[in-house]
Amino acid sequence: MALIVQKYGGTSVGNPERIRNVARRVAKYKAQGHQVVVVVSAMSGETNRLIALAREIQAQPDPRELDVVISTGEQVTIGLLAMALMQEGLQAKSYTGAQVKILTDSAFTKARIVSIDEQNIRADLANGCVVVVAGFQGEDEAGNITTLGRGGSDTTGVAIAAALRADECQIYTDVDGVYTTDPRMVPEARRLKSITFEEMLEMASLGSKVLQIRSVEFAGKYKVKLRVLSSFMDDPGEGTLITFEEDNKMEQAIISGIAFNRDEAKITVRGVPDKPGIAYQILGPVGEANIEVDMIIQNVGVDASTDFSFTVHRNDFDRAMDILKNQVQPHIGAREVIGDNRIAKVSAVGVGMRSHAGIASKMFRTLAEEGINIQMISTSEIKISVVIDEKYLELAVRVLHKAFDLDQEAA
Amino acid sequence: MALIVQKYGGTSVGNPERIRNVARRVAKYKAQGHQVVVVVSAMSGETNRLIALAREIQAQPDPRELDVVISTGEQVTIGLLAMALMQEGLQAKSYTGAQVKILTDSAFTKARIVSIDEQNIRADLANGCVVVVAGFQGEDEAGNITTLGRGGSDTTGVAIAAALRADECQIYTDVDGVYTTDPRMVPEARRLKSITFEEMLEMASLGSKVLQIRSVEFAGKYKVKLRVLSSFMDDPGEGTLITFEEDNKMEQAIISGIAFNRDEAKITVRGVPDKPGIAYQILGPVGEANIEVDMIIQNVGVDASTDFSFTVHRNDFDRAMDILKNQVQPHIGAREVIGDNRIAKVSAVGVGMRSHAGIASKMFRTLAEEGINIQMISTSEIKISVVIDEKYLELAVRVLHKAFDLDQEAA
Repeated sequence: MALIVQKYGGTSVGNPERIRNVARRVAKYKAQGHQVVVVVSAMSGETNRLIALAREIQAQPDPRELDVVISTGEQVTIGLLAMALMQEGLQAKSYTGAQVKILTDSAFTKARIVSIDEQNIRADLANGCVVVVAGFQGEDEAGNITTLGRGGSDTTGVAIAAALRADECQIYTDVDGVYTTDPRMVPEARRLKSITFEEMLEMASLGSKVLQIRSVEFAGKYKVKLRVLSSFMDDPGEGTLITFEEDNKMEQAIISGIAFNRDEAKITVRGVPDKPGIAYQILGPVGEANIEVDMIIQNVGVDASTDFSFTVHRNDFDRAMDILKNQVQPHIGAREVIGDNRIAKVSAVGVGMRSHAGIASKMFRTLAEEGINIQMISTSEIKISVVIDEKYLELAVRVLHKAFDLDQEAA
Repeated sequence: MALIVQKYGGTSVGNPERIRNVARRVAKYKAQGHQVVVVVSAMSGETNRLIALAREIQAQPDPRELDVVISTGEQVTIGLLAMALMQEGLQAKSYTGAQVKILTDSAFTKARIVSIDEQNIRADLANGCVVVVAGFQGEDEAGNITTLGRGGSDTTGVAIAAALRADECQIYTDVDGVYTTDPRMVPEARRLKSITFEEMLEMASLGSKVLQIRSVEFAGKYKVKLRVLSSFMDDPGEGTLITFEEDNKMEQAIISGIAFNRDEAKITVRGVPDKPGIAYQILGPVGEANIEVDMIIQNVGVDASTDFSFTVHRNDFDRAMDILKNQVQPHIGAREVIGDNRIAKVSAVGVGMRSHAGIASKMFRTLAEEGINIQMISTSEIKISVVIDEKYLELAVRVLHKAFDLDQEAA
């Protein structure tokens, strides 16, 4: 008998029929004697509908009140899934994040989990009950409703698995595992039987969209066995296992996959006085506004001034531009602030590149041959990322996938 | 400076434009120096949409999980209204029932308020904040989400007004006051400037739909000054005031109004052994299932057996029939159980009838002249109710409204 946490995303619970399918899958696991906790997202489209409604009222919705509104999406799903589980003859009980309770900090719309009280869930499981938990949400110390940001349901799933010391956390999604790149963009993309935690972290952070980055961090930190599976196949097979040691990696390619991300925007502060502390003066106010910065590049200074570029989530673009133009620019005496939210980031990811030279040059050459200009570059031990014009995104992903032989089964 | 609780129903907050209108009205009261608490329902149609979704999963949705699902309707509205109030330049903060907290019993889908912790609301008001509270919902002692049943937002409004000892509780709705009957059915219906608490109680319980009965009971118990106003008029005027003393009644007609109700269903248990305790044996199991019974009639027994009829809410009809056929009938040895959910109840209400004879006979004669058969009769000091075939409802209301001169201004 194992304790399994299953997480189902928005498309997996997108309508009553799909919710019934989830209930049937849970029933199979229960019939095998397992204890099951199910974490669910809002029905697909629901969160966007609620955000649109909020924006009709307030162009930039108050974060506390936005969380009150959008947290209802998951709340509807937990009730419906609990009912569907009862229809399968199971005992079931739903919990909102506040009811669990999942304690978070107070950073509305992007809160972080502080702790989880798993006592009630344990008691219900011991009584043979299937426990259904709302993903994406929690409650801060003052009792305010918070949400964890997009994809936060994955984080909830892994955090609950960690709190319960579950045997496995299964992430059910609309793909049957982690692919070498998005199969909707490149039909030759292949499913990976396993991927290391570090690679997955890069893939997730780069927008491969299978898992939310914080969920992978959580899984790594608490050594939660994580598996990505399809919720649309009767027998989802083994999906892709996220491993924590490179030795466990069954396929050993140099590059595991090509990740990409359209969710970023680039901001450049030009003519910045080139002196110590300038990076903090630029990014400090951005961080205080709770805007996360991804890539950061500072060019070599010319004439005692330099250009400073960085990327933020596209949703934060307007707010960040506002802060830079009205607070930062006058304060530091920069020449101008320019922004571009029509960019995309493409990355080659793989633990294999640690021991192989020439990966970067192969990547740059491949893009150059297609006439794709590289705007920013950043590298880590296991990935190389470039920012390009969004209109070249599909082309770039396709040619890189081919250049690194990702359409071939590994030896 | 007064402390005012305003309650807005589903049509008053039915879309973003209407929510903005509510915010503008609240801003006017704030500008006059008043403290304002706003209680809101779900946007119109939302609760029905959620119930339909639940029924797609489970024909008779589990009550606990149904409350989890439908309580989201009000939660969306409070967030949106708080945003709209901020757009009007006001400070605003939303509370779900659980956040307030509004403690209820555990009768899911029809819970009753046990107590309200008004400390946080008072603190927010003292800070100049407009407080927005979700109607219709609360939390039981175990932390489960509960709802108060249809129209429960009125009850929330009055209960909050009572807890805060507010100066007035204003119920904004899609009508501009209490009418002699539903103006949509009888164009000659007139608005009453005031109505006594007792009359209102009868009108509400009989489905005149302006106010929910428990809210009026609450108002009476805690002497909350209650006023019904239109949310669709720029200047809603004085609406209808609910008075607690008959002396305050400005119009003194014999009959104040004709109320009606299509929400009931009739159940008759035939061939019941006519012995003591039989009423309890029939209605006990119904009450245990938390089904409320309205009219009850036991005919004079013939051959040591009798017929026993009662009405329940139409939503509870299937469940009640199930209990009677499968539990009660075999147990007490009744001949048969028959049900009819195509009935309607029509009532003449007025404190004036206490001192006037002949009201009942006038009512029965008026209906007889139209060939409308009366199936059940019940009376109280200030009302006479009859159950008739639903298809005659409009006709009955129209002829009774005319017979009691309700289309004429009172002397």
